[in-house]
Amino acid sequence: MSQSKLDQFKSLLKEQASYSEAIALMGWDMRTKAPKKGIEHRSEVLGVLSQKVHEIQTSEEMKSCIDELKASDLDDVMKRSVEEAEETYDKTAKIPVEEYRAYVTLQSKAESMWEEAKNQNDFDSFRPYLEELVEYNRRFADYWGYENHRYDALLHNFEPGVTVEVLDEVFPKVRKSLTALLEKVQQAPNQPDPSVLEGHFPKEKQERFSEEILSRMGYDFDAGRLDETVHPFAIGLNTNDVRVTTKYDEKDFRTAIFGTIHEGGHALYEQNIDESLAFTPLADGTSMGIHESQSLFWENFIARTEAFWENHYDLFKSYAPNSFENLPLDDFYRAINEVKPSFIRIEADELTYCLHIMVRYELEKALIGGEIEVADLPTLWNEKMKEYFGIEPPTDAEGVLQDIHWAGGAFGYFPSYALGYMYAAQFANQMQKEIDVEEHIKNGDFQPIKAWLTEHIHQYGKMKKPLEIVKDVTGEGLNPDYIVAYLTEKYQTIYKF
Amino acid sequence: MSQSKLDQFKSLLKEQASYSEAIALMGWDMRTKAPKKGIEHRSEVLGVLSQKVHEIQTSEEMKSCIDELKASDLDDVMKRSVEEAEETYDKTAKIPVEEYRAYVTLQSKAESMWEEAKNQNDFDSFRPYLEELVEYNRRFADYWGYENHRYDALLHNFEPGVTVEVLDEVFPKVRKSLTALLEKVQQAPNQPDPSVLEGHFPKEKQERFSEEILSRMGYDFDAGRLDETVHPFAIGLNTNDVRVTTKYDEKDFRTAIFGTIHEGGHALYEQNIDESLAFTPLADGTSMGIHESQSLFWENFIARTEAFWENHYDLFKSYAPNSFENLPLDDFYRAINEVKPSFIRIEADELTYCLHIMVRYELEKALIGGEIEVADLPTLWNEKMKEYFGIEPPTDAEGVLQDIHWAGGAFGYFPSYALGYMYAAQFANQMQKEIDVEEHIKNGDFQPIKAWLTEHIHQYGKMKKPLEIVKDVTGEGLNPDYIVAYLTEKYQTIYKF
Repeated sequence: MSQSKLDQFKSLLKEQASYSEAIALMGWDMRTKAPKKGIEHRSEVLGVLSQKVHEIQTSEEMKSCIDELKASDLDDVMKRSVEEAEETYDKTAKIPVEEYRAYVTLQSKAESMWEEAKNQNDFDSFRPYLEELVEYNRRFADYWGYENHRYDALLHNFEPGVTVEVLDEVFPKVRKSLTALLEKVQQAPNQPDPSVLEGHFPKEKQERFSEEILSRMGYDFDAGRLDETVHPFAIGLNTNDVRVTTKYDEKDFRTAIFGTIHEGGHALYEQNIDESLAFTPLADGTSMGIHESQSLFWENFIARTEAFWENHYDLFKSYAPNSFENLPLDDFYRAINEVKPSFIRIEADELTYCLHIMVRYELEKALIGGEIEVADLPTLWNEKMKEYFGIEPPTDAEGVLQDIHWAGGAFGYFPSYALGYMYAAQFANQMQKEIDVEEHIKNGDFQPIKAWLTEHIHQYGKMKKPLEIVKDVTGEGLNPDYIVAYLTEKYQTIYKF
Repeated sequence: MSQSKLDQFKSLLKEQASYSEAIALMGWDMRTKAPKKGIEHRSEVLGVLSQKVHEIQTSEEMKSCIDELKASDLDDVMKRSVEEAEETYDKTAKIPVEEYRAYVTLQSKAESMWEEAKNQNDFDSFRPYLEELVEYNRRFADYWGYENHRYDALLHNFEPGVTVEVLDEVFPKVRKSLTALLEKVQQAPNQPDPSVLEGHFPKEKQERFSEEILSRMGYDFDAGRLDETVHPFAIGLNTNDVRVTTKYDEKDFRTAIFGTIHEGGHALYEQNIDESLAFTPLADGTSMGIHESQSLFWENFIARTEAFWENHYDLFKSYAPNSFENLPLDDFYRAINEVKPSFIRIEADELTYCLHIMVRYELEKALIGGEIEVADLPTLWNEKMKEYFGIEPPTDAEGVLQDIHWAGGAFGYFPSYALGYMYAAQFANQMQKEIDVEEHIKNGDFQPIKAWLTEHIHQYGKMKKPLEIVKDVTGEGLNPDYIVAYLTEKYQTIYKF
């Protein structure tokens, strides 16, 4: 290996990371602050910068770096960076340039058509775009290759190592347990009363409380900030600049509190990636599923526990309307954990959430596999909702049109959400063996929890693959028993059956 | 000309403009919102993007576009774009690459050394850096070439068309008039009382008032936003996204009000550049001086007039402490126009401001010309302050170290501020001939004023050179008589002599 080749490689990575930081900042800006008239110009600028990233990733220069360096003796970070760069190169190089460009144009058109279609509850106007997107994704999967199922090639983009074979074993098992659990919950005589949570929550107070909780979680405000947005997200520009956004509903504090903690979980992951990975493609979460496990861990395994509210209820009440003063903790706790089948995924509770994902997984797997066509989707969607939830959405806007993912061509993404739940339950189970999690939560001392997550997960960024992390942390592979056990125990206590 | 060459040129310009928008957003972000721990990483990213802009500007590809296109039949926008690109290419290509890189590194080092030196009031620790910067600037000027004075080559970067010959004729004339005027003002028995302006002005109220005034000026909040910062600035990402920043001093409303209006004047310029110039190097103010003329016009010729406060005083009082209710308009008006020699340029009043500039101009001209050396600066600075203002700064921090410009290597920049005053007075004089400015101000109807500025100045961006604009608008060249006449009349009325 020539030193100059390594320098050249590092310089390409740095350039790529620099464009990516610019793109991330522009994205954050557009979703928080940017004046609306500037959006059109900004979109063109984003197009130019994304094109640059794509050019670097597929350049002859990159290819020659990869070829020379992968046969060389490198330190671990550079070794993994070369692997990552090669994977990206191969993936991208397999798609003809013209086809890729047409696809990018289609994506952006489809997203705006989807928005319109959702507003108008008009699936048919969106259908031709979705058909084209599915066609492209089928073709891309064929370019990329797969062993068993064409959908595996797409899954790989979001959760490398997880396949249809794995999901088809795990998901039905979980579904069976959850639907049985849901039935018990619904039949329980002692139902929580969510109306006790109603009140007027001034935005400023919610903002202060959100900041307070983020700080307690160990989120570093010197390396991030909290802003308001319409669709909350967390975004890492670099490990020292990881921003959280949230949304305040003055009638329902749950939106901001649990939303902020959720995004805070994502943010903690990115803030604690090892600094030695800066300016490499490894300074990022290792997969969508592991990322989601971190946000869900904080949102559910910490912030929806009784232990958490034993400590934080008084603090919360100091930010809440007077009427909360007389609300017993137990009523509050049970109300924030109400289970209720609903049409909208992002509003779902912990128990039904994974069922929403399974509806999507089964449909997109069949779509990509060519077993069903886009035109079948609305009917099949409603049938599955009926089967898993016992309810049927009155409109497509509340059904098949609700999520943006397919409009962006993101097939293979949805399973990550359910995997995130499963990983989180596995991590939580392991953590409890090593430290007294409940006691720390009760004491409001999150430092040992954050330290555990950093030590076992966060620091590695993309140095380890998702299933490698799961194995290293828990000693086993993906195992859905933990999420089922966790939910069963939790709702038995809450619903008293 | 081949169409493909023109397309190639446009594509290079678009790429350059895209990086520039990213750089501008990053700059805005760092000065308003960015978490402090992310600054170091961000600086590296900025380095990469700036390097990219530099590479495009000096690329062989750019050179070949320029060579082919400048002999071609182009529309006016492309013709001027090619000229602009050629000027940049020539300027940059004349500096050896290694020398340029070393200079960029020096600049950033010098800026942090300057900050330290200013805090410590220690000129000597900054001296070696300033010496190097001067050395580079002397050499650059020699690379670029000049006819009469080496300093002309630097002036050209900020105010093309203006030379030492021009300034040496204009500045002493103005200085003589202003020092005479200052003497009269100081001797006037009837002095304004600035203590009447004291009070507590809650930040939120200042913010609302600032927004109200910006809206009235015609600043488009759908194409911009107002944020808080430490050193206020306006920045154009593109003509549909031009952001204003300001600073709130709860003890002194003048900081935010006049500061916001000043930056608002800059912002109106950039918001009203013709959209056809988007993604060309012409979508920018034509020079520092013309830019400053716009901010100063709004700050002084509008917002410091009696007519303005006749209309806005009641509105202002509704945002101000109760004590203002009994303060007569005339006392208020005279107080906000108090003249007082001071050490700090950015705190100077309209009358003494240009004198501050002349101190700097004379020193930097002599420095670049090799007539004095860096070590002479502190003494010479204080001597000139004594001569022009009758006061001497007690420390270098309040003297030669006060401004960042030289630490950034920006020699030739300072004169633009004084030129801005002169241009503004010339424009104001011409505008008054065409529309009844005072009447419009009195009515709080700024639309005709904004329209006049857009028609005669803003829309052109860099399509016209600064002195071309002055000539087209006023029918004559740079003429300092107008600023002198304006200030004389103004202060005669206020100081009643």
